[in-house]
Amino acid sequence: MDLLDKVKFDHNGLVPAIAQDAANGDVLMLAYMNRDSLQETLEKGVMVYYSRSRQKRWLKGETSGHVQKVKEVYLDCDGDTLLFAIDQTGAACHENYRTCFFRKRVGEAWEIFKEKLKD
Amino acid sequence: MDLLDKVKFDHNGLVPAIAQDAANGDVLMLAYMNRDSLQETLEKGVMVYYSRSRQKRWLKGETSGHVQKVKEVYLDCDGDTLLFAIDQTGAACHENYRTCFFRKRVGEAWEIFKEKLKD
Repeated sequence: MDLLDKVKFDHNGLVPAIAQDAANGDVLMLAYMNRDSLQETLEKGVMVYYSRSRQKRWLKGETSGHVQKVKEVYLDCDGDTLLFAIDQTGAACHENYRTCFFRKRVGEAWEIFKEKLKD
Repeated sequence: MDLLDKVKFDHNGLVPAIAQDAANGDVLMLAYMNRDSLQETLEKGVMVYYSRSRQKRWLKGETSGHVQKVKEVYLDCDGDTLLFAIDQTGAACHENYRTCFFRKRVGEAWEIFKEKLKD
């Protein structure tokens, strides 16, 4: 796929993928894709990452149901970062926050400033 | 600084830092920080990265004048990604686009869909 040939994967074969809420522009999470998971993402229209901790394909929402549907895909100038505008079902974060960025700097501390979603 | 101790740097001592336009939510770029550049960013309130290609401190805008002023700082659930809401002067991208994500997937191609800024 020509699209994939423009993407520069790092020495581990990974590229960072930013998931941004298509509805309101919130940055929801950053995870990584390898060539196979990016190809699957582009083909199926749902976010498929590569889990660095589990070292395997990670279809987002496969167990939680918190699927991320792809609306738009962007590539940066250097070809080494991807940005996805997505429709997020439920929480992007495994801690049940809508976004993984639920902590904000306040002075010398990181403070939680988001509410968890209701189950 | 306590703030820094919550951040997980990778085996290269780096953490990805997403810069998001505080004005409209556009994701402008992703680059990397090491502990020193993150500390300097937090202290000075302007984005200081670590350039992987040049292997040195990179004060964004030092030569171009395209400084990024920090408005808010967010840390993700795993502590291994930072998100900054910033005020961007001029172009974030060295190719003189406002955002580095000026290419969008259209079918089987990446198409430029943004205009370069006027000099």
